[in-house]
Amino acid sequence: MEARLLISCADRHGIVAAVSGFLAARDANIVTSDQYSTDPEGGAFFMRMAFTIEALDEELVQAFATEVAEPFAMDWRLDDAGRAKRVAVLVSREDHCLLDLLWRRRRGELHCEIPLVISNHPDHASDVEGLGVRYEHVPVVKGEKPAAEARMLELFSGLSLDLVVLARYMQILSGDFLAGVGCPVINIHHSFLPAFAGADPYRRARERGVKVIGATAHYVTEELDAGPIIEQGVVRVTHREGADALARIGRDVERTVLARAVGLHLEDRVLVHENRTVVF
Amino acid sequence: MEARLLISCADRHGIVAAVSGFLAARDANIVTSDQYSTDPEGGAFFMRMAFTIEALDEELVQAFATEVAEPFAMDWRLDDAGRAKRVAVLVSREDHCLLDLLWRRRRGELHCEIPLVISNHPDHASDVEGLGVRYEHVPVVKGEKPAAEARMLELFSGLSLDLVVLARYMQILSGDFLAGVGCPVINIHHSFLPAFAGADPYRRARERGVKVIGATAHYVTEELDAGPIIEQGVVRVTHREGADALARIGRDVERTVLARAVGLHLEDRVLVHENRTVVF
Amino acid sequence: MEARLLISCADRHGIVAAVSGFLAARDANIVTSDQYSTDPEGGAFFMRMAFTIEALDEELVQAFATEVAEPFAMDWRLDDAGRAKRVAVLVSREDHCLLDLLWRRRRGELHCEIPLVISNHPDHASDVEGLGVRYEHVPVVKGEKPAAEARMLELFSGLSLDLVVLARYMQILSGDFLAGVGCPVINIHHSFLPAFAGADPYRRARERGVKVIGATAHYVTEELDAGPIIEQGVVRVTHREGADALARIGRDVERTVLARAVGLHLEDRVLVHENRTVVF
Amino acid sequence: MEARLLISCADRHGIVAAVSGFLAARDANIVTSDQYSTDPEGGAFFMRMAFTIEALDEELVQAFATEVAEPFAMDWRLDDAGRAKRVAVLVSREDHCLLDLLWRRRRGELHCEIPLVISNHPDHASDVEGLGVRYEHVPVVKGEKPAAEARMLELFSGLSLDLVVLARYMQILSGDFLAGVGCPVINIHHSFLPAFAGADPYRRARERGVKVIGATAHYVTEELDAGPIIEQGVVRVTHREGADALARIGRDVERTVLARAVGLHLEDRVLVHENRTVVF
Repeated sequence: MEARLLISCADRHGIVAAVSGFLAARDANIVTSDQYSTDPEGGAFFMRMAFTIEALDEELVQAFATEVAEPFAMDWRLDDAGRAKRVAVLVSREDHCLLDLLWRRRRGELHCEIPLVISNHPDHASDVEGLGVRYEHVPVVKGEKPAAEARMLELFSGLSLDLVVLARYMQILSGDFLAGVGCPVINIHHSFLPAFAGADPYRRARERGVKVIGATAHYVTEELDAGPIIEQGVVRVTHREGADALARIGRDVERTVLARAVGLHLEDRVLVHENRTVVF
Repeated sequence: MEARLLISCADRHGIVAAVSGFLAARDANIVTSDQYSTDPEGGAFFMRMAFTIEALDEELVQAFATEVAEPFAMDWRLDDAGRAKRVAVLVSREDHCLLDLLWRRRRGELHCEIPLVISNHPDHASDVEGLGVRYEHVPVVKGEKPAAEARMLELFSGLSLDLVVLARYMQILSGDFLAGVGCPVINIHHSFLPAFAGADPYRRARERGVKVIGATAHYVTEELDAGPIIEQGVVRVTHREGADALARIGRDVERTVLARAVGLHLEDRVLVHENRTVVF
Repeated sequence: MEARLLISCADRHGIVAAVSGFLAARDANIVTSDQYSTDPEGGAFFMRMAFTIEALDEELVQAFATEVAEPFAMDWRLDDAGRAKRVAVLVSREDHCLLDLLWRRRRGELHCEIPLVISNHPDHASDVEGLGVRYEHVPVVKGEKPAAEARMLELFSGLSLDLVVLARYMQILSGDFLAGVGCPVINIHHSFLPAFAGADPYRRARERGVKVIGATAHYVTEELDAGPIIEQGVVRVTHREGADALARIGRDVERTVLARAVGLHLEDRVLVHENRTVVF
Repeated sequence: MEARLLISCADRHGIVAAVSGFLAARDANIVTSDQYSTDPEGGAFFMRMAFTIEALDEELVQAFATEVAEPFAMDWRLDDAGRAKRVAVLVSREDHCLLDLLWRRRRGELHCEIPLVISNHPDHASDVEGLGVRYEHVPVVKGEKPAAEARMLELFSGLSLDLVVLARYMQILSGDFLAGVGCPVINIHHSFLPAFAGADPYRRARERGVKVIGATAHYVTEELDAGPIIEQGVVRVTHREGADALARIGRDVERTVLARAVGLHLEDRVLVHENRTVVF
């Protein structure tokens, strides 16, 4: 089987030796290894190792904790690379990010299960159900957003979600909802943040006369459009493109950037450090 | 000879016919023609035509004014494409944009004359003079910036400048200075504006954890970093790049974007509309 | 209504004046105009004009022919921009280009009708029919390709096709078939032609160790992978990507490049000159 | 001090543990580590580690050889990262790659010494000498290329070169010369190889009507333009660009791609495997 080990800790001499020595002693073979230190002396250290091993049993996990993780005061995670993560998708009217995620999952490009898609519009029911995925319409009535959020949390309960993806979900989510979800939430914003954070970025990009537009996939935090950036993409535009054309051109970047970010997360390639990401 | 005609006016039927009919009657051959209308009904119309003609004499210019420009209430300009525009460059410590402009001019990529380079540092004298260009050191003493600006205007006088380029000139210029220059001023800002306007954009990009950095060439207006954008470029970065590495990577984008913007201006390809550019 | 005029002829003085004068006299308003000449003296001239006009009646078309087109010996076309072109799609096993085209059409990004999708595999029937499009399975039996081509031509007859798109159709088409189709055929090739023309480009890209892969949309001619290129796109890769990963990464470029090329063709933006395209 | 270790060997369990254990026991701190295996079972393994250590003395090198390298049958190299590599540059008429390399070295972007520039033209003497670098003009007389090559080898002798860079040197070098140089040779080719290998790539790109041009930096082998590719870059073009414009646009890609490739080589980031590179 293939396993993945993610580590964050204070940088010190001997970390790689301790980890790789432990794995070698159990006859694991390291397939890929990435590491990053904010500063070789006194910085924060991050590592991702993928390795093949006979089995990830309880004894091994316990031994790693006491022999390696505790001495270095590591924040760590050891995952079975073969397990498909469970992902729910939230979406509003625009379907391009949603369909792209569903199609990539079907092709095997994204290794995950999608037990549920929720939208505040009924429009995508037949597309989603046609792909064999459950679709729930949770309308957001003005002034009654808490009820909608509560309904979504209810739908989530029991699904054992690893990730929620906002695939152009145009409602702002409350801190309570984010806390209740209990797993990371990834959003796609249709600008190269921090430019044009907030509403209507293409119209504002048009008014500012930029020659490049973009999209940003980030983890959602309570502060709007300010969470750690996972991935960004851009595309050139000219004076000829009105706000509608920018939106049309932007859709290609949005779906590509979101799919990359989701793929990176599913492969355990993203670590968060302060408000930034380390992407291996 | 080759001439260039630039037109801005309210869009109406018959503009192209009037202009091309006038030129055809004088046996001009249109080499390239670009037009743009913000709205075919009631919008603003912009056109750039390059054409070959026997001569651009006074009679022709006068005839165009009365027969074509006045009936359509055009804002227009008719230039000899063969005349090299005259450009002054202002620069501080970083030399990459400066040298790139000087090399491109020598190689014939930028069709212009550069009668003067001014810096608030003495560092580049031998490089610039080695390329046969006059170099003046105008230090900016704290609290005495007006004196420095006055000295620069004095050096400019009599040079018949068509353009001033801020090739990483790190001093904010006053409205009085900009008015006194009497020609367009192009600046290169080391971020993809409007993100990270103001000082120290690479450090702030680093702190925000962006995955894309950029550079923006724009016409300078009194409001800092808010003038019409001519050209932008971007480059991907990762968590591995510290602020120094971002600055190093950014230099390549900065010099390329600035050179493109200056080239577009020299070829009369940029028209300003409200706070945006139309680039043909 | 909006109309589009496409012209190819020998470059001469007065073409733009003749065309725009004709249109102005009929109170047309030119919305966009692009022109290109391989050489202002003695070259080939190409123009695309989009204009609004009351109506495109027979009298106008006839008048344009005799008053403008004949004197300049123009090769020309005058089309109603509002008419949706009719497109058939051929596809083999890979569905990414097919689905992308169908989605874009549904979303209104591609202005066309798709009366038929043909595949040499039965796999995509439910996807295609679920989007309301007819799907025909025409297997290609070894040694009996002429029969399959005849069957496809039979299916095409009566559809009044304007375009056939090979959306990863992995069979080589005969000259007879191409002649029988009677409209342009666009293919997507999964390399940046002319590199890796022919079969299995990702494997060969991998073996050559390139750092950039790409895709090419081109008009199909009898000589394999040698027709006029409409659009190309590329993406960076590293030594880490095996042939499978290259294929996966390449799919995003393929579908984007093909969609752009098809969109350009549908908007009458592509003119062919010798074995190259002029794209306005 | 900082040191760099490069390893190629057959992939086996325990390599990382053996190397990192050896370094940890000598109190080295691993700053960055990259590894790649063509196949985790039975493939070829490549690693680059940068680490800080008190000193790289003879005892340590010997110990590494016997304790780590020999048991795993490693092909390996251990270098002082602080030592500036010694680079000679060959150039013909075009100066953009040459000046870019010299300028980047002066800025500290390329960590190397450049004891000699040779050209088959006298043109760049004052530029090169103005930057404090020795310039030798070695003309290549038709039919007497062996004499020119002999003269260049003579000039190289005693310089202890680590690298020779062909910065748009337009002469084909013989296998004897390459053998005589005794160090790697990097060339910049002005196309995205393998497309347009050989002479005059921009003209041929123009004739084929490509929409993307590029540049390729590769190690030189006896077979022309067929050596391992280190880095490639591309840029979009249109039908409007003639062969001269392609050459002008291409210069920016050429100098950037060459500088990146040289930088990667100077930092010991490139390993050659069969006819491909592994770039860390």
